Amino acid sequence: MCDPTDVQSALAEKRFKLTRVGVTGVKKPIEVRRPWGTRTLNATLDIYVDLPSDQRGSHMSRNVEVSGEIVDKTVREPVEGLEDLAARMCDLLLERHGYASYSEVDIRADYFLEKESPKKTTSLENYQIRARAEGNRNEKTRNYIGVTVVGMTTCPCAMEGVRDALKKEHPEIGKKLDEIPVITHNQRNKTTVMMEVPSQENLEVNDLIEIIEDSLSSATHEILKREDEAEIVKTAHENPKFVEDVVRDVLSALLKEYEHFPDSTQVEVKSESEESIHKHNALAERVTTFGELRE
Amino acid sequence: MCDPTDVQSALAEKRFKLTRVGVTGVKKPIEVRRPWGTRTLNATLDIYVDLPSDQRGSHMSRNVEVSGEIVDKTVREPVEGLEDLAARMCDLLLERHGYASYSEVDIRADYFLEKESPKKTTSLENYQIRARAEGNRNEKTRNYIGVTVVGMTTCPCAMEGVRDALKKEHPEIGKKLDEIPVITHNQRNKTTVMMEVPSQENLEVNDLIEIIEDSLSSATHEILKREDEAEIVKTAHENPKFVEDVVRDVLSALLKEYEHFPDSTQVEVKSESEESIHKHNALAERVTTFGELRE
Amino acid sequence: MCDPTDVQSALAEKRFKLTRVGVTGVKKPIEVRRPWGTRTLNATLDIYVDLPSDQRGSHMSRNVEVSGEIVDKTVREPVEGLEDLAARMCDLLLERHGYASYSEVDIRADYFLEKESPKKTTSLENYQIRARAEGNRNEKTRNYIGVTVVGMTTCPCAMEGVRDALKKEHPEIGKKLDEIPVITHNQRNKTTVMMEVPSQENLEVNDLIEIIEDSLSSATHEILKREDEAEIVKTAHENPKFVEDVVRDVLSALLKEYEHFPDSTQVEVKSESEESIHKHNALAERVTTFGELRE
Amino acid sequence: MCDPTDVQSALAEKRFKLTRVGVTGVKKPIEVRRPWGTRTLNATLDIYVDLPSDQRGSHMSRNVEVSGEIVDKTVREPVEGLEDLAARMCDLLLERHGYASYSEVDIRADYFLEKESPKKTTSLENYQIRARAEGNRNEKTRNYIGVTVVGMTTCPCAMEGVRDALKKEHPEIGKKLDEIPVITHNQRNKTTVMMEVPSQENLEVNDLIEIIEDSLSSATHEILKREDEAEIVKTAHENPKFVEDVVRDVLSALLKEYEHFPDSTQVEVKSESEESIHKHNALAERVTTFGELRE
Repeated sequence: MCDPTDVQSALAEKRFKLTRVGVTGVKKPIEVRRPWGTRTLNATLDIYVDLPSDQRGSHMSRNVEVSGEIVDKTVREPVEGLEDLAARMCDLLLERHGYASYSEVDIRADYFLEKESPKKTTSLENYQIRARAEGNRNEKTRNYIGVTVVGMTTCPCAMEGVRDALKKEHPEIGKKLDEIPVITHNQRNKTTVMMEVPSQENLEVNDLIEIIEDSLSSATHEILKREDEAEIVKTAHENPKFVEDVVRDVLSALLKEYEHFPDSTQVEVKSESEESIHKHNALAERVTTFGELRE
Repeated sequence: MCDPTDVQSALAEKRFKLTRVGVTGVKKPIEVRRPWGTRTLNATLDIYVDLPSDQRGSHMSRNVEVSGEIVDKTVREPVEGLEDLAARMCDLLLERHGYASYSEVDIRADYFLEKESPKKTTSLENYQIRARAEGNRNEKTRNYIGVTVVGMTTCPCAMEGVRDALKKEHPEIGKKLDEIPVITHNQRNKTTVMMEVPSQENLEVNDLIEIIEDSLSSATHEILKREDEAEIVKTAHENPKFVEDVVRDVLSALLKEYEHFPDSTQVEVKSESEESIHKHNALAERVTTFGELRE
Repeated sequence: MCDPTDVQSALAEKRFKLTRVGVTGVKKPIEVRRPWGTRTLNATLDIYVDLPSDQRGSHMSRNVEVSGEIVDKTVREPVEGLEDLAARMCDLLLERHGYASYSEVDIRADYFLEKESPKKTTSLENYQIRARAEGNRNEKTRNYIGVTVVGMTTCPCAMEGVRDALKKEHPEIGKKLDEIPVITHNQRNKTTVMMEVPSQENLEVNDLIEIIEDSLSSATHEILKREDEAEIVKTAHENPKFVEDVVRDVLSALLKEYEHFPDSTQVEVKSESEESIHKHNALAERVTTFGELRE
Repeated sequence: MCDPTDVQSALAEKRFKLTRVGVTGVKKPIEVRRPWGTRTLNATLDIYVDLPSDQRGSHMSRNVEVSGEIVDKTVREPVEGLEDLAARMCDLLLERHGYASYSEVDIRADYFLEKESPKKTTSLENYQIRARAEGNRNEKTRNYIGVTVVGMTTCPCAMEGVRDALKKEHPEIGKKLDEIPVITHNQRNKTTVMMEVPSQENLEVNDLIEIIEDSLSSATHEILKREDEAEIVKTAHENPKFVEDVVRDVLSALLKEYEHFPDSTQVEVKSESEESIHKHNALAERVTTFGELRE
C-alpha cells in the first residue's frame, strides 16, 4: 500500500480518457450480396471504442468477437454492403462496451467488377473499396463508403509545350498539329473517393467507380487487344488531365449524382499520379462537405 | 468556341478550391546539426499548397525547387532540426505561390541515437522522426515534431491469469509466486508521439524518445549480451503495460516535461503492439491539446 | 538503311534470350473447392514465359488472357487447389506462346481456416498461401505449394539466463524454479514452407499449416478468452523455440508426413521472429531436397 | 531421462544443417567515401552464416556486433563502397562463427547523385543501391553490387497502332506522321542491375546508373522547367522501349563497359514498367553470366 496523496496524484496524472482503443489488421472473409450475385470479399478491419479516464483497459477481445458474430452471419445472410456491416458492428460495440461513448469500424477490401474495353473485350477489373462507420451513444451512426480506382492521366501542360516545339520543327505540318493529339507524359493514377452515406440514403460503390473512371484521362483494363490499346491511348490524349482536374470533375459529378444529399454530407476526393517524368508523385485533394461545395 | 451559357455552367460546376495540391515522396539527404555533431538524414518529403477555385493548376515544380533551395543550404549551414526546415519551406512556398493561402510540409526520416544497454553495451538505435509545418498567410506557421519508437510491452492481464493458474498447479510454491515476475505474452511495440512546438519554444526529439522508452515495459537494443537479455526480460515483466498504459504514461510525462507549453499545444500519442498471441495488433490513441489534458 | 556489318554486330549485341518476360501483380478472385466447401480466394498472380534471342518482344496480353480463361472457368468448375490452377496455366502458356520453351506462374492469396483455441473458442484464422508452377516444353510441369503461418516463439536462451538470475535473487524458491515456466522474451513469428508436389502426389495445404503450428512455441488465435490466454502463454513457455528449432522441427515433420515423396522433391523452410527485445528480426532458413535431408 | 533409442531417433530427426541463420532488417548509417566527397548512407542490413547439423543455435548477437564494429569504423575511415564493407563483414563473420562454413551480407540503401536535365537544371536524384557478399571458408569472398533506377518507358507497339489509326483519320497529314513522334502510353519504370565484382576489379555504381538511364526511353528528374518537360517527352517518344529492349540494351552495355571481366561474372538485369494502361506491371528479366552472354 502506498501513501494516499501519492495515489491521488498518480491517479490524477494518468486520468486521461483515450480517443481510440482497439484492434487493427483483423482479416476476415465477408459475403456481400450485390444486385449481380454474392461476392466474397477478403477484408481487413480496424475496430475501436473510446475509453473513459477512470478505466485502465478496454476489453479488446470483445471487438474481435463482435466482428466474428456480425461477419459470420454474412455467410448465412450476406449484407447489402460493407457500410451496413460497419454500422451494425458500431452499434453492437457500444452495446458490448457499456463504458464506451464512441465506436469506430474501418473495413478495406479488394473488389472486382466486370468491365468492357473500347473494343468490347471484357475483363474483371480490380478496385480497393473501403467502408467506415462512427457510432456515438444516443446519436445516429455515421456511415462512409469509399473506393480507390487505378486509371490513367495525361499531362495537358507538357502536351502544349510539345505542340509548340513540334510546330517550330515541322512548319510543313504546322497548324495540322492542332487537329491531332500530341505526345505528352502519361502515367498510372490512383484516385480515391471517401464519402458519407446519409441515413435513409443509398450509395452504390459501382457508381463511384463510374464517376471516377469518367473523370480520368482514361480508365485502364487488364486485357486489351491491339486496337483497344490505340483507342485508349487516343482517348487519354483527347482528355489530358491534371490531378487538380480529376478531383474537380469527380466533385462536380458527385454533386450532380447525389444532389438530394444534405449539406452536412462529408466527402473527400484525392487523386495521385505516379508521374512518369519524375520519381515523385503529384497529388490533389479536397476534404469538404456538400454544403461548402454548393456555395 | 462553345456556347457562353455552357461555359458559365461548366465553370460553375468546376469552380472548386482544393485543400492540398503538391508533390509526395520527394527524397532528399538533409544535414542536421545536433548538439553532438552533424548528421545526414535521408528524408522523404510531401510538399503542398492550397489552390483557389479560379485557377486550374498549381505550379508543382516550385514545390520541388523550394525543397531543393532550402535543403541544399543545409549542406553549407546545417539546420537545428527538421521542424525549422519544414517551417522555412512553408514560408517560402507562400512566397512563391502568390495565389496560395495555405502551405504544408511533411518530412519523415530514419534517425539514429547511441544508447546503452543495462550492462553498458552501447549500440546505435534506429528511430523514425517526423516533422510537419502548416503555413497560413498572415498567421504564424505551426510546427510539429514527432518520433516513432520501437520497444517492448508485456501483457499485465495474461500475467495475472497465469499467476492464478500456477498457484493452483504449484501449491508448494504458492504465495512466493507473488514475489517473482510471472510469464505472459510480450511483443514488439511501436509508439508514436506527434506534437506541436509552440513558437519561441524548443523541443528536442531525443527527449521525446526518452519519454516514450520510459513509458514502455522496456526499451529494446540492437546488441545485447546474455546478461543484458535477462535484465531486459526481467525489467519488462516488472513493468507490464497495456497499450492504454503506454499512451497515458507518455501523456503524463509530456505534461510534466513541457508544463510551460500553452493550452493550445496540440499532441497525438499512439501505441500499437504487434500482439504475440494474436495475428492482429492492439492499438491505443489520444488526439488532444494540452488544455484538455490539464482539465 | 545501315551498313550490313553494323546490322550484324548491332544484332549480335542485342541477341540475348530473356529468362522471364511477363506480367506481375494481376489480381483475380479464384473459386477453390475444398473438402469442406467452395472458397473464393482473392489472388495476386505473376505470369511469365521465356523469350528467344531472335524475338524482340513477348505477347504479354496472352498471359492475362490465359489467366482469365483458366481462372474464370473456376466460377463454373472450382479447382481442387491453386497448384492445379498454376499448372494448367503453365501448359496453356506454352501452347499460346509457340516461341517459348519455359513458362512460370506464381499465385499468392489470403486463406482462412476455422481453428479452435485451447478452451474450444473457434475463430477463422488467416494464412497466406502460395502456389507456383514451372513449365518446360516436352517435360512434366513442376508444381509447388506453400503457406506462411503467423505464430509465436519464446526464447530458450533468455529463459535460462533469467532462471539463473532468479535463483540467485530468490534462494527461498530455489530449485522450485525448475518446475515452473520462467519468463523470457516471446514474439510474433512468421514461418513459411514452400514445397514441391511430385506428379501423381497430393498435398493438402491444411496439413502444412498443422505441421508449422505444431513446430512453433504456440499457434496464435484471433479470439481468446482469459483462460485461453493463460493456457497459450503457458504452452508457449513450455516449448521455447529458436527459429533454428522451428525450421528443423518443420523439416523433420515434412519428412515423416511425406516419406513416400522422391529424393528429388524440393523444399524451402524459413522462420522469422520479430524479436520483442530487438528492433531487428531473427531468421533461419533451409533450402534443400528430400534426398539431402535423408542423408 | 528418456529412452536412448528415442534420443537417437529424436536427434537423427532434427540433425539438419541450416542454409542461413542470422538477423534481418538491421539499420545503420554508413559513411562512404566517393570521388566527389563523403556521403552518409542510411542502410538496412541482413547478416547470415550457415549452421552445422550438430549445433542447436547460432550466436546471432555476433552478427550485429560484426556490423557494429565494421560500420562504426567507417565514421573514422569511410569505405570506398558498400561491396567492400559487405566483404569485410563476411570475412569477420567466418572468424567469429568458428563453426560456420558460409557467411552472407546484404546491404540496401538510398543513394543520391546530382544530375542535369536537358536544359541544364541540376537536381539531386534518388536511387536504391544494394551490395551483397558471400563468404566461403578457404575461398575468395564473392562481391556483388547493384542499383535500382526509376525512369520512363514509352510503348513502341501502341505507338505504331496509333500511327496507323491517325493516318486513316487524317489523310491530309498522312505520311508526315512518319516524321513526328506519335502518342503512346508511357510510364514509370524500375530497372535493376545486380552484378558480380570480380576480385581485383572495380565497379563504380554511378556507371551502372548511367548505363541503365541510357537504356530507358528517358531518365527522369525531380526538377524540370517547362522546356525540359517537352524535351524529355520528345526524347522518350523517339526512343520507345519494351521492358525487353531495356534489359537487352543494359546487358549489351555491360558487356562493352566490362569486357575485361571473366566469363564467370554473374549478372542479373530486371526491368519493370508500371503500365499506365493496365493495373498490372510488365516485367522482363535475365539471370546469367558474362560467359553465356558472350556465346
